[in-house]
Amino acid sequence: MTKQFLVDQINAKQSYLCVGLDTDIEKLPAGLPKNKEGVIAFNKAIIDATAPYCVSYKINTAFYESQGIAGWEAMEATLAHIPSTHFTIADAKRGDIGNTSAQYAKTFFETLPFDAITVAPYMGKDSIEPFLAYQNKWTIVLGLTSNPGSQNFEQQKLANGQFLYESVLEQVASWGSPEQLMFVVGATKANDLESIRKIIPAHFLLVPGVGAQGGSLSEVTRYGKNDAVGLLINASRAIIFASSGTNFAEDAANAAKGYAAEMKALLSE
Amino acid sequence: MTKQFLVDQINAKQSYLCVGLDTDIEKLPAGLPKNKEGVIAFNKAIIDATAPYCVSYKINTAFYESQGIAGWEAMEATLAHIPSTHFTIADAKRGDIGNTSAQYAKTFFETLPFDAITVAPYMGKDSIEPFLAYQNKWTIVLGLTSNPGSQNFEQQKLANGQFLYESVLEQVASWGSPEQLMFVVGATKANDLESIRKIIPAHFLLVPGVGAQGGSLSEVTRYGKNDAVGLLINASRAIIFASSGTNFAEDAANAAKGYAAEMKALLSE
Repeated sequence: MTKQFLVDQINAKQSYLCVGLDTDIEKLPAGLPKNKEGVIAFNKAIIDATAPYCVSYKINTAFYESQGIAGWEAMEATLAHIPSTHFTIADAKRGDIGNTSAQYAKTFFETLPFDAITVAPYMGKDSIEPFLAYQNKWTIVLGLTSNPGSQNFEQQKLANGQFLYESVLEQVASWGSPEQLMFVVGATKANDLESIRKIIPAHFLLVPGVGAQGGSLSEVTRYGKNDAVGLLINASRAIIFASSGTNFAEDAANAAKGYAAEMKALLSE
Repeated sequence: MTKQFLVDQINAKQSYLCVGLDTDIEKLPAGLPKNKEGVIAFNKAIIDATAPYCVSYKINTAFYESQGIAGWEAMEATLAHIPSTHFTIADAKRGDIGNTSAQYAKTFFETLPFDAITVAPYMGKDSIEPFLAYQNKWTIVLGLTSNPGSQNFEQQKLANGQFLYESVLEQVASWGSPEQLMFVVGATKANDLESIRKIIPAHFLLVPGVGAQGGSLSEVTRYGKNDAVGLLINASRAIIFASSGTNFAEDAANAAKGYAAEMKALLSE
């Protein structure tokens, strides 16, 4: 997917919502079997119900891999069901030496034709380049994450005065263009977004941590938005597990609709 | 597997060799089909031929995932074929927020019953803890890797004077014991091993980069060995693709035997 297509979708819908399909098989609503068929039926119902209100879906690969081959089959079927209008993200946090990263890029750009994959930066440039080699595919590199552990390394001060995550944003941004590269920036650090935008003004940010993790949609938008909106805000559990009854898809749609309405209001401010 | 069992295996064989099953389907020897059956037949032949000379096998998950469901099936069949005397590593470089890392731990400790998984440290403590929660399972955290990109972040100086990788070793070592935690340290940085051993004297090191990547076995052993040997040295391509003819398994065995002989000599020095 091109950047222009994504921006057009966002402008048309006045929504920059990404729905996270962290489909925990143990949390499937009553009435759905706790197996591959149950996961696929759940995801299809969630996608059909929420598609009008979002522009992207993010599949958290861990929840599928943990089911082995059946999980992999559920991931394939889910990806195939997402409309081509929606930006698809493999939230896989991969990254290894070059010849191995090339295999991961093949996995998530070819074998499973996602638009984007999340990548961990620790191993540096040659671990990220194989992903950037694909045209009209996106590499979403971890910058500042929303979890408590971000203090251990990401928020350590370097000798040059930068935080590690600032050095990651700055260096990685020099390896790929805003047409192919995004960054993960956690919503729980909304007030850091102002300084982050000075380092990477033009890149899209994928922002998790709104909803179950407690981040504020209005603050993220105020500090993180750029001329092309430049935000994909992800909510997972707060939407897909909005309720656990037989109305789960309707309740998920209402939760997504709520985010989208708030986004529309924030964009018109 | 317990640490004592692993150390006993190493002492009995006088080998600390790990064979890396980075089985690139495009590089299978002539005569083997480039599909799941070919990968499984290749891996079984390699395992049968090299098992006397090594104490561990490392499956590089990327080379299997890139083949989708068939690759996952090949990974399962390969893992099942490895003798229980050998320490099995999923070289998967996973890591995410806590509830997601718990799913990855389930994947590689339960669904696929590996002894160990490699983990990327960028996201910090809560991304690593779910792996450490398993008894007699091992978490192998990236410290200093052998690729050129290790300069970008791992080898950056922090404000406190440490390199980032030194802070990773020091902090992570405080989260788990040497009975459950190892570190990846690249062989191409053999002279850094002396200072690394001051930070983590007791932990096992998984050392890639010997062979195809150019690291020296004798230097790694000299600087990295501790009282319990404390090293697993991995070679992948240099063993499994030692030749591409019909004698591939015999040639792999000879390559592994060569490493093991050198290791035995180094241990008796």
